[in-house]
Amino acid sequence: MNETIKYKSIGIIHTPFKHPKGTPIQASGAKETKGKIEVFSDFEKGLKDLNGFSHIILLYHFHLSKKPELLQIPFLDYEPRGVFAMRSPSRPNSIGLSVVRLDKIEKNIIYISDIDIVDGTPLLDIKPFISKFDLRKNTKSGWLDKTATKISATKDDGRFSR
Amino acid sequence: MNETIKYKSIGIIHTPFKHPKGTPIQASGAKETKGKIEVFSDFEKGLKDLNGFSHIILLYHFHLSKKPELLQIPFLDYEPRGVFAMRSPSRPNSIGLSVVRLDKIEKNIIYISDIDIVDGTPLLDIKPFISKFDLRKNTKSGWLDKTATKISATKDDGRFSR
Repeated sequence: MNETIKYKSIGIIHTPFKHPKGTPIQASGAKETKGKIEVFSDFEKGLKDLNGFSHIILLYHFHLSKKPELLQIPFLDYEPRGVFAMRSPSRPNSIGLSVVRLDKIEKNIIYISDIDIVDGTPLLDIKPFISKFDLRKNTKSGWLDKTATKISATKDDGRFSR
Repeated sequence: MNETIKYKSIGIIHTPFKHPKGTPIQASGAKETKGKIEVFSDFEKGLKDLNGFSHIILLYHFHLSKKPELLQIPFLDYEPRGVFAMRSPSRPNSIGLSVVRLDKIEKNIIYISDIDIVDGTPLLDIKPFISKFDLRKNTKSGWLDKTATKISATKDDGRFSR
């Protein structure tokens, strides 16, 4: 029943962050950081119509993350928290999610801003960010409600990397 | 370089929608629909601290989607659009993303609302929805800006399923 699900990357994300240590931990802490996505040419045609969107959702593989523990001490706290209640890169399935700003597209290259991703990360999917689908109002953020304001000043200290 | 990335599901999503045809195409079209997630017991410990969040992000495998075309006619339009400019389930890597409402957690079962997912879907990851990380203001939604209001009245007609 629990079969292996297999994916192949559709491109590579290029950013100024060469190592996990020092990388912003969320896009909201990476304002104006520029990067680009190299979409493999086989998939270039799938980028049609994407240039009208201001933001895109990137799903990618945390290729440098270490073996996951189910309880981890997050960057923004001192207590062990459940892995599904945090955004750690070290997860049972190490899929990352970032909403980044789309600057322009030239052939198979997408220029982006507000990036919290390590250079060389394999890209799995691009989805358009659609406010009517993706926004939620009046949300509660559990243990993070009191600490999430520290996000823009916090960088990765390498604790989740191999 | 382009290695296969392998994941295993961490649980199964149970919903009232037995087939893709007739399923709401986004959570915003599935208000109040109830369902539950069975997280495999090996991963139960990772749910600690999740119960303080009002919304969670589910990443899952579109297990019924057909072979992807790079250009597809979306539910909300009549013109072929690039697959990365739409939210079709038929994608090069068929990963689905939904933000659902978290009602309660009992052991390894998560009760959720606002679900646009087919029954039996394999779950890949759960992330807490954190407004400080995930909200974006003043966004533009390209070709969808004029049609996304139709979302709540539109159901899957089966076009992307096997």
